[in-house]
Amino acid sequence: MDKKNSKPSLLISFGGNALNVSDPLHAYQKQEFEIARKSMSGVIDLLEREYCKIILTHGNGPQVGQIFLQQELTKHEFPRQITLDICVADSQGRIGYILQNVFDNICRQRGIDRKSFAVITQVVVDPDDPAFNRPTKPIGVYYSKDETNKLKNERGWEFIEDSERGYRRVVPSPVPLEVVEENIFHQILDEGFIGIGCGGGGIPVIKKVNGELVGIEAVIDKDRTSALLAHGLGIDQLVILTDIDGVYLSFKSSKPQLIKNISADQIKAYIHKGEFAEGSMKPKVEAAVEFIKRGGKKAIIANLNALVPAIAGKAGTHITA
Amino acid sequence: MDKKNSKPSLLISFGGNALNVSDPLHAYQKQEFEIARKSMSGVIDLLEREYCKIILTHGNGPQVGQIFLQQELTKHEFPRQITLDICVADSQGRIGYILQNVFDNICRQRGIDRKSFAVITQVVVDPDDPAFNRPTKPIGVYYSKDETNKLKNERGWEFIEDSERGYRRVVPSPVPLEVVEENIFHQILDEGFIGIGCGGGGIPVIKKVNGELVGIEAVIDKDRTSALLAHGLGIDQLVILTDIDGVYLSFKSSKPQLIKNISADQIKAYIHKGEFAEGSMKPKVEAAVEFIKRGGKKAIIANLNALVPAIAGKAGTHITA
Repeated sequence: MDKKNSKPSLLISFGGNALNVSDPLHAYQKQEFEIARKSMSGVIDLLEREYCKIILTHGNGPQVGQIFLQQELTKHEFPRQITLDICVADSQGRIGYILQNVFDNICRQRGIDRKSFAVITQVVVDPDDPAFNRPTKPIGVYYSKDETNKLKNERGWEFIEDSERGYRRVVPSPVPLEVVEENIFHQILDEGFIGIGCGGGGIPVIKKVNGELVGIEAVIDKDRTSALLAHGLGIDQLVILTDIDGVYLSFKSSKPQLIKNISADQIKAYIHKGEFAEGSMKPKVEAAVEFIKRGGKKAIIANLNALVPAIAGKAGTHITA
Repeated sequence: MDKKNSKPSLLISFGGNALNVSDPLHAYQKQEFEIARKSMSGVIDLLEREYCKIILTHGNGPQVGQIFLQQELTKHEFPRQITLDICVADSQGRIGYILQNVFDNICRQRGIDRKSFAVITQVVVDPDDPAFNRPTKPIGVYYSKDETNKLKNERGWEFIEDSERGYRRVVPSPVPLEVVEENIFHQILDEGFIGIGCGGGGIPVIKKVNGELVGIEAVIDKDRTSALLAHGLGIDQLVILTDIDGVYLSFKSSKPQLIKNISADQIKAYIHKGEFAEGSMKPKVEAAVEFIKRGGKKAIIANLNALVPAIAGKAGTHITA
């Protein structure tokens, strides 16, 4: 394939479902590899058609959830719990390995001369971000009221009452400001590798006055980080893959209506009207709008199983300037 | 600095002590970062003197030990235990983050324009390696005789009696054959990055007839993997850092004698005479010999705190052809 005649560059952001084992307690060993295989096959279908520069980003919900829970459950044996930035790093190693392994296996089997490459990614956030005063992202197990009081005192954790099942720890979800490894993604994209990174939105770090980067307890929205990286790399199209077919108006009504093509301004107006669910479709649409406002050519929100038709303009929601 | 007048390229292999918290139960949060800072400072002292192409590899004993133990301790909550290849991947993410963060922080503070880059590394082993019939590497907690019988039946694990403290699971330690990400290390070295990888000897995978790579339960010796990668990349010097000053003859006698300069053939003869401890100095010396036999210019075994004098020829054991 001719690298010079390359098609639009893409950043594809995979939701948690790209790797998710729906019933982790009864899943068998290695099942995550099989699920990843389905997700990566779609990307390779694209590469089979044309030479594309591609970056893949991914969530880490189920994996970081298990890692964090195992910390909590073994706190008597390991009183020094690892911090949340380290939990995210662990999950990036795990998912990076799985995706890199599966991607390259499929390429070898189909005779495609491309190789992927997982990047451990740190992302700078602002310690003065208002999110640090108002933690909103629930993680870990459910606690009783009594337990939360104890943990508030012992560790300074904050909690919300969640879905009538009890209380869960909440952590801040600050705005991503800078992808520390952006230059690395840039280099490997130039070399023709498929970069994999920004797992779970990136390892959150704050930048001290002397330039030092220090890990902090937070969880960054992966789609906002994806939009930031796509902009920084001059990527043409941001593709956000999820488990529904695109962005719907009146989603919870009896007649939900799929948006096929829309301008960033129009969809922004729908955000303000409260059309999209908090913590679900809203942050995806916001990330898409942000990418377009900063000069991106197109943002697509589509079903995980419809990557090729989405890129061809035949599926998903397409947002342009 | 002028990249063209670069000094010898180096692969520096850090022992577990480069990150090790001696008393993990009573260590405080983030202590690993402080210990890593000491280790990385030595590397940056070198870079301050001259432009070097450098790859860093590292052990993962304490980290993968904790990850593996947390699996075992939470087996009732998470019946689907992650396999050992995934444990290694988690530890590569964690240590990659710590080293990358600390290395870059020091460079920024000292005004050195270099950046490091952690690589999730898979390493191919042979499923017919005799090591799979004779597991020797102990991992995880101590078990009673009764528990080992149960786990032998349930999971097919093998055990050895260890240090009169009980029984421990043993896993195979096969010979590394190929660093899957070698080409990535090659590219990033060319770009001037400091590559960090092969954590814990690499994630062990076997290669199927169709070329597919599949993770397997084993632990690879990090120094053998380091020698393999150094050879593959055409690195000039392999530097193995540990917690003693070099290779000693009659190490356990009243008059241990530090070897300063020696040929690969001479030190190989000492291996055959049983001079070096199994699972400790012997595998390091073997890795050094292997590197020289395959064309490497020099292998150095030295103290973690003596990197700069070791490179200058003033410390450690220097092995040449």
